[in-house]
Amino acid sequence: MNNGLDSSSLPPEPASRVKTEGYHMDAAEFRRQGHQVIDWIADYYQQVEKLPVLSSIEPGRIRAALPEQPPGEAEPFERFLSDLDQIIMPGITHWQSPNFFAFFPANTSGPSILGDLVCSGLGVQGMLWATSPACTELETHVLDWMADMLALPPQFKSGGDGGGVIQDSASSAALCAILAARERATGFQSREKGVDARLVAYASSQTHSSVEKAIMIAGIGRERLRLIEVDDRYAMRPDRLTDQVEQDLAAGLKPFFVCGTVGTTSSNAMDPLPEIGAISRRHGLWLHVDGAMCGTAALCPEFRFIHRGLELADSYCFNPHKWMFTGFDCDCFYVADRAALIRALTILPEYLRNRATESGAVIDYRDWQVPLGRRFRSIKLWWVIRYYGVAGLQYHVREHVRLARELAREIQASADFELVLPPPLNLICFRHRAGDEFNRRLLEALNRSGRIYLTHTLLKERFVLRLCVGQTQTREPHVREAWDLIRQTARALS
Amino acid sequence: MNNGLDSSSLPPEPASRVKTEGYHMDAAEFRRQGHQVIDWIADYYQQVEKLPVLSSIEPGRIRAALPEQPPGEAEPFERFLSDLDQIIMPGITHWQSPNFFAFFPANTSGPSILGDLVCSGLGVQGMLWATSPACTELETHVLDWMADMLALPPQFKSGGDGGGVIQDSASSAALCAILAARERATGFQSREKGVDARLVAYASSQTHSSVEKAIMIAGIGRERLRLIEVDDRYAMRPDRLTDQVEQDLAAGLKPFFVCGTVGTTSSNAMDPLPEIGAISRRHGLWLHVDGAMCGTAALCPEFRFIHRGLELADSYCFNPHKWMFTGFDCDCFYVADRAALIRALTILPEYLRNRATESGAVIDYRDWQVPLGRRFRSIKLWWVIRYYGVAGLQYHVREHVRLARELAREIQASADFELVLPPPLNLICFRHRAGDEFNRRLLEALNRSGRIYLTHTLLKERFVLRLCVGQTQTREPHVREAWDLIRQTARALS
Repeated sequence: MNNGLDSSSLPPEPASRVKTEGYHMDAAEFRRQGHQVIDWIADYYQQVEKLPVLSSIEPGRIRAALPEQPPGEAEPFERFLSDLDQIIMPGITHWQSPNFFAFFPANTSGPSILGDLVCSGLGVQGMLWATSPACTELETHVLDWMADMLALPPQFKSGGDGGGVIQDSASSAALCAILAARERATGFQSREKGVDARLVAYASSQTHSSVEKAIMIAGIGRERLRLIEVDDRYAMRPDRLTDQVEQDLAAGLKPFFVCGTVGTTSSNAMDPLPEIGAISRRHGLWLHVDGAMCGTAALCPEFRFIHRGLELADSYCFNPHKWMFTGFDCDCFYVADRAALIRALTILPEYLRNRATESGAVIDYRDWQVPLGRRFRSIKLWWVIRYYGVAGLQYHVREHVRLARELAREIQASADFELVLPPPLNLICFRHRAGDEFNRRLLEALNRSGRIYLTHTLLKERFVLRLCVGQTQTREPHVREAWDLIRQTARALS
Repeated sequence: MNNGLDSSSLPPEPASRVKTEGYHMDAAEFRRQGHQVIDWIADYYQQVEKLPVLSSIEPGRIRAALPEQPPGEAEPFERFLSDLDQIIMPGITHWQSPNFFAFFPANTSGPSILGDLVCSGLGVQGMLWATSPACTELETHVLDWMADMLALPPQFKSGGDGGGVIQDSASSAALCAILAARERATGFQSREKGVDARLVAYASSQTHSSVEKAIMIAGIGRERLRLIEVDDRYAMRPDRLTDQVEQDLAAGLKPFFVCGTVGTTSSNAMDPLPEIGAISRRHGLWLHVDGAMCGTAALCPEFRFIHRGLELADSYCFNPHKWMFTGFDCDCFYVADRAALIRALTILPEYLRNRATESGAVIDYRDWQVPLGRRFRSIKLWWVIRYYGVAGLQYHVREHVRLARELAREIQASADFELVLPPPLNLICFRHRAGDEFNRRLLEALNRSGRIYLTHTLLKERFVLRLCVGQTQTREPHVREAWDLIRQTARALS
């Protein structure tokens, strides 16, 4: 088959699709195929519970099933969904399965999928206010809503000096926070002259790897990120932070940034923000708080203890794409001083100049992030908030926490397993009493079964199983069955 | 209305939706509402041509139409589409209108929208191979297809030492290229010890602002980015590049990176890659080539002249989300030495360790980008390639270039307008002969009309109109009508 790569320079005639539109999909076909794709997704959700959660395919199998050459001629859309079933689905790990307890969840939901569909359909760019005012204004507005919904301190709302923006991930939020901090600490001269080699940053030994990555990207160097020791609950020790800052100051260095985490990835540890915040204020550090997973819990007043001390922070982020039923990518990033962030990131070439920007009356979100282009991501978040209402979101978060706590009690009561830590919210760290090697084998057997998917971590050098109850569709029967399976599998391995 | 923010800690009862699922959208409702959203998008495309391209709304109007408080209780989905029509649509600038000639296009198409819908529906994370093998393997495979389709040099294919990855944007691609270059030039020590203060980078005065931004982010400092002078066609002058590199070497600095552009944003200038590549090789610079807009043209053999010399590049990117009918975000980023990129960006915490990663047999794309999480973006690209076929993509690219060249001839033949440059492909830079102020007023009148949307640039300090023929739906009548409108409006202003 001629794949067109060496075709002559004469344009081929368009195929049998509507002549005047060339090869484009016309409205009638879009409707027909679109309905099919919607139905395919609905069918998927009706069966996902029964599919093996973790794909067991071997490396290279998917590629081997794909044609080596790209298609020279247009293919009928009718084949696309059956190829999805036959080629792609065996290589899917089902993050939307109610039996997914691994990592942290990356949830979505009906209203999010449909809101994202509108975003894809409109296909607008929100880099400047002027390039689609609604894209910017809905985002600012919904992020103010979210600040109220989580009862965030007022410095993060757009009415004052702060404001929120959607980033793709907590990694990018951390990078932007570090860049703003780097610039504030150096009179906005690092962006011009290169990094001041005396800068030093702080995080705990349990902080997410994205902070280390961002420190490296920003040219600070990993050696200048001090990983502060944690206490018995894996929370940063403020006394050790103070010691290290003072030692660095004495050595002529410039402490400029600290990251506090509310809900670490490894064990959901909560860093003590009031103490870290006080140290930050005393030494002029930019305090960034990473609530990527657990921030969602603050929808419920009884879980807002996680944000105690947040009023001392310069920036904060949490991910609706983890626990708030909103599809990736949707990280809400807030700053108390938006001018610092913008001044750190802005560059305005002639071809982006426009009247609205120059008036100063509008937000241009391109200056709040690394990339220039941006999708209309706030639609999905808007729709999730409206579809569930605050009450609905609270209901599901409480349900997940309740299920996690019940399971924790069962683990605690069991003779064979131990709870490594009391779970602050919905992440359970536990292990079989038979030691590291046994737990390793147990994890592998569980994941190989396809019936559930868990991951692990190391705590005090011990191999620990992590089970997070947070997937959109996870309900009581799934947690019960997971626990039954874990016990059965352990017995079989013993 | 109680917005739930101060509700007691007792979970409210779920509303009337399926009891066992709490507040979630059930499959039947997803089908029903999903079909409605698909139809809404189909209707949108049938009328978008008639809508004012550039939104004329005033700052603050969208926010004023939104409720100040988030909804306490769940709202019926039925309201969502009518709110979209009434609140959001007046604030949309229609990037998918065939009358959009501004900036560069940010195209999408039916198969892309539906492919992205599948991505949102599956909701998988592709950060590691193991977290959804198909997400990684389809991406590697389709990027190899694209390399063949554009006849890219073999070093960029995954079979050897190189390979491709989807980034959100050319900005992020440039940042990753600069980070890999920074590390290669410093023995992978900048990530550990902080940036070497002697590093110097090069680009032309016409290079996209994202390179300047990336240099600033990476801690190099804008003063260490040399903006090399351009020739009469706005292409980088290799003699000036050589001079500057030699001057910097003589000053004890470390030249490490150069960006060449094939199709600059301002005027579509083509930097001379063979000469820049030779200089790069001589001095060990990492050559990154930015083909964000024009790369797509290389689908057609007759336009592959833009990539002459690309075999000398270390990295390359182009954006199917600009001209190849694939929705944002979809930037294809290629490196010749993937080990350098990975070594620059990798960090492996315990909770991400897994057997497949440790085997070395798989790609973990998290090490090819800044964020950790990633969507299944290759589905939309796969579907676009299959739906159009290489022949269909070539047909539309050729059609756009043909229309642009015809318009350029008309402008050249006109008494009142001048063509500022011969268009290499589909971007036309032109102006009315009546001077800067007149052209400024002309641009504003055209955009205010709502019938077309153009943007401007400065070339040799003169105000120049930019008209890019590249929107998915743009056909001959739209270009003719645009030209008629431009002439009529100019006459009315004269």
